[in-house]
Amino acid sequence: MTATTDSLQGYRGPARAVLEHHDVGVWSDVDLDSSQGRFEGLILPRSETADDKHIVLKLASGYNVGIAADTVTRIVAKGRREAHYKIPEKEFPIDPAKPNVMLFGTGGTIASRLDYRSGAVIPAFSPGELYGSVPELADLCNLRTEKLYGVFSENMGPQQYIHLAERIGEEIARGVDGIVIGHGTDTMHHTAAILSFMVQDSPIPIVMVGSQRSSDRPSSDAAFNLIHAVKTAAESDVAEVTVCMFGPTSDQYGLLHRGTRVRKMHSSYRSTFRTIGDVPLAMISADNITYLRDDYRRRRRDRDVKINTAFEEMVTILYYYPNMRPDVVDAMVEKGYRGIVIAGTGLGHVNKPLYPALRRAIEKGVHIYMTVQTLWGYVQMYVYETGREIMGLGVEPAANMLPEVAYMKLCWVLGQSDDPAEVQRIMLTPVIDETTEREPYNGYLIYQGAVPEVQKFLRSFKR
Amino acid sequence: MTATTDSLQGYRGPARAVLEHHDVGVWSDVDLDSSQGRFEGLILPRSETADDKHIVLKLASGYNVGIAADTVTRIVAKGRREAHYKIPEKEFPIDPAKPNVMLFGTGGTIASRLDYRSGAVIPAFSPGELYGSVPELADLCNLRTEKLYGVFSENMGPQQYIHLAERIGEEIARGVDGIVIGHGTDTMHHTAAILSFMVQDSPIPIVMVGSQRSSDRPSSDAAFNLIHAVKTAAESDVAEVTVCMFGPTSDQYGLLHRGTRVRKMHSSYRSTFRTIGDVPLAMISADNITYLRDDYRRRRRDRDVKINTAFEEMVTILYYYPNMRPDVVDAMVEKGYRGIVIAGTGLGHVNKPLYPALRRAIEKGVHIYMTVQTLWGYVQMYVYETGREIMGLGVEPAANMLPEVAYMKLCWVLGQSDDPAEVQRIMLTPVIDETTEREPYNGYLIYQGAVPEVQKFLRSFKR
Repeated sequence: MTATTDSLQGYRGPARAVLEHHDVGVWSDVDLDSSQGRFEGLILPRSETADDKHIVLKLASGYNVGIAADTVTRIVAKGRREAHYKIPEKEFPIDPAKPNVMLFGTGGTIASRLDYRSGAVIPAFSPGELYGSVPELADLCNLRTEKLYGVFSENMGPQQYIHLAERIGEEIARGVDGIVIGHGTDTMHHTAAILSFMVQDSPIPIVMVGSQRSSDRPSSDAAFNLIHAVKTAAESDVAEVTVCMFGPTSDQYGLLHRGTRVRKMHSSYRSTFRTIGDVPLAMISADNITYLRDDYRRRRRDRDVKINTAFEEMVTILYYYPNMRPDVVDAMVEKGYRGIVIAGTGLGHVNKPLYPALRRAIEKGVHIYMTVQTLWGYVQMYVYETGREIMGLGVEPAANMLPEVAYMKLCWVLGQSDDPAEVQRIMLTPVIDETTEREPYNGYLIYQGAVPEVQKFLRSFKR
Repeated sequence: MTATTDSLQGYRGPARAVLEHHDVGVWSDVDLDSSQGRFEGLILPRSETADDKHIVLKLASGYNVGIAADTVTRIVAKGRREAHYKIPEKEFPIDPAKPNVMLFGTGGTIASRLDYRSGAVIPAFSPGELYGSVPELADLCNLRTEKLYGVFSENMGPQQYIHLAERIGEEIARGVDGIVIGHGTDTMHHTAAILSFMVQDSPIPIVMVGSQRSSDRPSSDAAFNLIHAVKTAAESDVAEVTVCMFGPTSDQYGLLHRGTRVRKMHSSYRSTFRTIGDVPLAMISADNITYLRDDYRRRRRDRDVKINTAFEEMVTILYYYPNMRPDVVDAMVEKGYRGIVIAGTGLGHVNKPLYPALRRAIEKGVHIYMTVQTLWGYVQMYVYETGREIMGLGVEPAANMLPEVAYMKLCWVLGQSDDPAEVQRIMLTPVIDETTEREPYNGYLIYQGAVPEVQKFLRSFKR
């Protein structure tokens, strides 16, 4: 068998060279010897996002394994199995003693698997498929799944938020014990924020999860994150909207983040989600849930939940830069925007030439809230004369609300009222830690979990 | 003497109560006993930014000391000295063997001292005043000072950048050995970025410095940062535009950040400036300069420097949020903006409804560059179909350039050319690490310096 270009689908660089050298390709059924050991399996195609250093085998166990190309000593082809290969799908076992979890799919990498025919990454979401891929899920719960959408997360919007909040309310009423929401990672924290406002006082966990690397990649975090999220939904006591994703020391645990204090902080790393200005709620491993604080909302047996899906679309974020011109503010007013969240510099500042434009906007009834683009720390507009002047114009300081969270909250509040006093009252009354009284000593830039030597070191910090 | 309201200027809470209890006030010349020892000095007024827990004394040495109010056991007034009190000002000693440093003042907390008449924080900047306050400076260099402006840093703009670049060029030509720029912290990283483009191939260090807490506060970082910055300008081998500020373990060192990779990350902490996606250039203490890498531009004896003060003001930043509407893009085009930096989600994404607006903008000659709002990581628009579509519209990915840095670079580039190919060539050709080939393992979220146990721990990270 000669490897054609097509049969090396997705392989580049060193990995491709090794396959060519051994005259094998995608769908070859092989014995592979490497310094890591001997492997028997099917060579899988790779997606275009994959690195060029690994060869990926589908083992007889159903698991995929990535083998570094430079460790390979020999590959012998035994045949070719493309036509016969099928995703393992098993009936998800039902155990009346286990909690019932609903998994909503909205799209994103977590909901995808490799399509072995095309090599493309496509959604795969039935309980049977998930059980075939991640059999550990059946140890945790009885799983149902429902694909609500299949969108890249940058395309999520109010239509999806409202529907999702309503479906959550229905599932809670039906008696489910926990909800997991599979979501693209790009805007997972935005969705977590708006759901924190739209779905209040839930009696059960509502856990968002995603993956930074799709399941055809050896370094995929999909199964790892999914197990942690389902465990949290099934077993944890945290009845809030949360994000459960890869922790900084990933092989040990995932971290559970409060939906209003979490942000994506790296475009490609798996440990991308971080709690900002606070510590996470819990560390989640396959075996344990370790609570890191005790101020979370507890799971309840009742089925009470408040669903409020108000949403005003005409809200925008102004990310301040020096020399910002007043025409940027005027333009938003002219387009009919009713709310503006400013991400200001320092303690919440913008330049003086903007003041008249801000005044004009506020006189036209636009609601303007100030946040900080440092992300960590508080708006403190009373410290400098300039801050006091900006407050005098009617710009409201939003404490330590993250800009994205303030945007979502203002959309939600303006969907309910246009009265400045009422808008201010709702905006500045915390629903669930979107503003906090103070930032703990280890809430800045890093949270390394419960590693004692790092905790000790962090406590020694001067700020 | 009875303490009047006026004579307790700036004191609140516990500190005020202690002064009232002992019947002393601002400008009282006192003997003060506390569990920390006995102090003799003048009670200073406090600024409105000060905490309510400390009493600040001006000692005979000229230093200010903050004494925790709850440690005070006795205060005895000896008199009142307001009328006679004057800022210590000594002639800065000149030593021909020492390097010559120019300190430019632009404003901000670093350039301020307490005005003992009004209690307000006002600029104080002569070499003699600095020497009176921070005598260590004379051990490092011969200092000259020049106050260029006295503005809050959010009011810095192209007029100031251009003048500053020109003055830097003149000082280099005059033979100075290092330049320090005192600057407000809010937009210090913006100014560091634009100066990195306007002033290229400098033969000497150009070090920006500021302080998060003014020098009338016991926890002020003003003297600490100033000593480190002046030491860097006088003695270091780093001939680049840098930011020298408080490190995470502050009592031990400051950190020196490359001007194109630094960002303010906390609104109030002293350890606010962080190198993003890379490690800092050096650790600076009063005694040592410890280089953390060797890829910096070296100090030279020649006087060659390239000054290019091009600047186009009609550039803006769009900070993406889900459900962003196309009218936001259209509005910027209608206002005549020629350049847009998008801070996109994830690997560099925006929602589909924006695509037609982006196309319209680009067809009208607007130059659009994509950065990531995660701050850490790279734009990688080839990974997903959506990213490729956005590139197909003509949006250019800007690798790991920080949004603020991309904004400043686009202002600078559009001041030189309007030809898309030429703009792209200059934008994507790194001047000095505004884009880098790769991010080091310890470039994410935290840099804890050379503390061995933390370094070891960081190396164990999975991402």
